[in-house]
Amino acid sequence: MLDSFKIKTKTRNDLIDITNDLQQIVSKLNIQSGFCVVYVPHTTAGIFINENADPTVPLDISNMLDKIIPWKSDYRHSEGNSAAHIKSIITGSSIQVIIENNKLMLGRWQGVFFAEYDGPRERSVIVKIINC
Amino acid sequence: MLDSFKIKTKTRNDLIDITNDLQQIVSKLNIQSGFCVVYVPHTTAGIFINENADPTVPLDISNMLDKIIPWKSDYRHSEGNSAAHIKSIITGSSIQVIIENNKLMLGRWQGVFFAEYDGPRERSVIVKIINC
Amino acid sequence: MLDSFKIKTKTRNDLIDITNDLQQIVSKLNIQSGFCVVYVPHTTAGIFINENADPTVPLDISNMLDKIIPWKSDYRHSEGNSAAHIKSIITGSSIQVIIENNKLMLGRWQGVFFAEYDGPRERSVIVKIINC
Repeated sequence: MLDSFKIKTKTRNDLIDITNDLQQIVSKLNIQSGFCVVYVPHTTAGIFINENADPTVPLDISNMLDKIIPWKSDYRHSEGNSAAHIKSIITGSSIQVIIENNKLMLGRWQGVFFAEYDGPRERSVIVKIINC
Repeated sequence: MLDSFKIKTKTRNDLIDITNDLQQIVSKLNIQSGFCVVYVPHTTAGIFINENADPTVPLDISNMLDKIIPWKSDYRHSEGNSAAHIKSIITGSSIQVIIENNKLMLGRWQGVFFAEYDGPRERSVIVKIINC
Repeated sequence: MLDSFKIKTKTRNDLIDITNDLQQIVSKLNIQSGFCVVYVPHTTAGIFINENADPTVPLDISNMLDKIIPWKSDYRHSEGNSAAHIKSIITGSSIQVIIENNKLMLGRWQGVFFAEYDGPRERSVIVKIINC
């Protein structure tokens, strides 16, 4: 079972909560037990799991990533977005979430974020669901 | 096949070797060929694979993560643990390990570490095992 | 289905494009739908997905990782390669790639890189393929 959806990011750095989009895909399939791979087919974006209750958490994450990997540095890549490539490898291109009784088995405070590092753009998220 | 276990972390930063806990779960299931997803349902902890022979390796890892992502900075999140959230997304919320002949197929020097970044607390680790 | 291959890295930091090696393993199996886990059994190397078109991208990634995690610092581990261990946990020990119609479902600009952080050495890559 393979699905995908699009998102429009609005700013250069944009952390977008996609937990509900993923849960909707899982809900229509009726998975009693399994897991999903959520995959980002981009080289200047990433995906991660973290707190989606307090909006200052993604803000602090975004600001600290910018401090660690500054947009301007002595980069060679002529497109000027090397920082976005580096953030992408640090947060990763995919996550996996266990599914039980038709629900993503996320922790109490966990949500799934699409991480835009070189927006605004239209982006894709691919979801592979394994029933097992 | 879904299992889980609890761990008590002892300090704010605490890297705990959980390789034996995972191997025990695998051993009782008799998996000839498969893999497992090891998932941390927390937003201020992580999981990774690295050397578990020399205890100075996790010590150096912990100290360098603290240098890169200092506990005190101009964070907005009022709980004061933003550094722990950021370390969590950098090391990740899950790993996958291949299983062959009832054994985690880890490299010669590899062990699995639960990474506490905002302890001490009681934490959970969820293990999904796929026979394939 | 489990396979593996060897690579020889040439310098201390060496990012090697292994996309074709992986695609060849997938091609001979005829997988209509599935995914693969690509696993690195080493503690001073990693694996990630990023742009493999412009060689300045891996160069910028490698240089920035060296800035963030310097080779020399107040490390305790006597082998002197703590920076390589830390880079390994930051980029991760495995990736997963979805497979459709016998092809790795990578994005337009994505390739898979083996990341050597303490070379030169001979290294292994393990590939587990799941048909589902």
